Amino acid sequence: MAIQLYELCGTDPNRVFSPFAWRSRMALAHKGLAFTSVPWRFTETSSLAFAGSKTVPVLVDGETIVADSWAIAQYLETTYSDRPSLFHGKAGAMRFSIAWAETVVQAGLVRMIVSDIPQWLDAGQVAYFVEAREARFGMPLAKVTEGREEKLPAFQASLQPLRATVAAQNFMGGDTPDYADYCVFGAFMWARNVSPLVLLAKDDPVYAWRDRMLDLFGGMPRATKGCTP
Amino acid sequence: MAIQLYELCGTDPNRVFSPFAWRSRMALAHKGLAFTSVPWRFTETSSLAFAGSKTVPVLVDGETIVADSWAIAQYLETTYSDRPSLFHGKAGAMRFSIAWAETVVQAGLVRMIVSDIPQWLDAGQVAYFVEAREARFGMPLAKVTEGREEKLPAFQASLQPLRATVAAQNFMGGDTPDYADYCVFGAFMWARNVSPLVLLAKDDPVYAWRDRMLDLFGGMPRATKGCTP
Repeated sequence: MAIQLYELCGTDPNRVFSPFAWRSRMALAHKGLAFTSVPWRFTETSSLAFAGSKTVPVLVDGETIVADSWAIAQYLETTYSDRPSLFHGKAGAMRFSIAWAETVVQAGLVRMIVSDIPQWLDAGQVAYFVEAREARFGMPLAKVTEGREEKLPAFQASLQPLRATVAAQNFMGGDTPDYADYCVFGAFMWARNVSPLVLLAKDDPVYAWRDRMLDLFGGMPRATKGCTP
Repeated sequence: MAIQLYELCGTDPNRVFSPFAWRSRMALAHKGLAFTSVPWRFTETSSLAFAGSKTVPVLVDGETIVADSWAIAQYLETTYSDRPSLFHGKAGAMRFSIAWAETVVQAGLVRMIVSDIPQWLDAGQVAYFVEAREARFGMPLAKVTEGREEKLPAFQASLQPLRATVAAQNFMGGDTPDYADYCVFGAFMWARNVSPLVLLAKDDPVYAWRDRMLDLFGGMPRATKGCTP
């Protein structure tokens, strides 16, 4: 049976938007592994009970079940060690880039895009999502993202280490992308698949990098219709 | 002849404070290579003419002369490939951590410590340094660092990706340090060797990481007397 990847989406199963699931999706493509996407919605916690998890991504590869994007990356690297490496044999050296993707990029994006997510969810999911996120932020979602255009300069400035990197070479991994690229790109795919907000100027080296990432694997990441360019 | 490393100092040749030279110093130690430190001061540009460089670090290894910390790291990795790897065979994958060290850590530190540097220089160097740096910042150095304690919270917050990393594992490189650790640590050694400003709370995981770094190679980085703990 083909590998299955449980991924977050809303009513449209093609609009996959978990940044963590995107890491796994790109890692599978990097390894050249075909997979079937299994749509998963916020309220379907019981459907992941088989994996002992409450969140996606979850990978099913034959008899093996792996939950959590980082566990999935390490599983793929070890199990498919004859295929292109995701992190050059030293998993620990990836952690800093992953932490940057989460604490800088995702943390910066969520305050600009979280209020765009409910439009992609059906009524039952909206109720869950809005309640959970408003509890986290302590305010209405519209308030979280209010004046978001004014937050863009600080967000763009926070990307400076990435900008300096991809101005000098094609990918964070060097000539070719590695798992660091996929983690940061996952954050951008989350934004792209839920929000109309234009995040990057076209002359930004980060824009060109994101474009190179969108072109990978036959342009697979571009597949969702109606996304922000 | 032993390897020579030209390093920035002031009147005290033991107080080496270029963050870039510290990268090379740590890289040499990582490779287990003995070296002689050659003190170099800001105004001694002609003494580096043999290397075609105006700045330190410069490495001399037998007949080979290498200027620029990144060129030195790659030279050491290639030439001494039988010794512990600095970056796991994929140099490009280091660039993001280096960019972060420069655009976040060094850029944050310089506005808190630059006015501490002249005290370590003799009169001729002070004249050069103050003029050059005041031209860069467009204001007196005392003005650059004014109210620096108020800048500390934002600086500490900017370290969050490092904090998340070294809360989960000993070093950016994983169980053992790699060149990413040395680049970020170089920035902290620059601050430590010129400024009395206390940068980190003792319960900060970054403090514990810096302490582990200071303990490396028999505690070599701790050797300068009279530095901020």
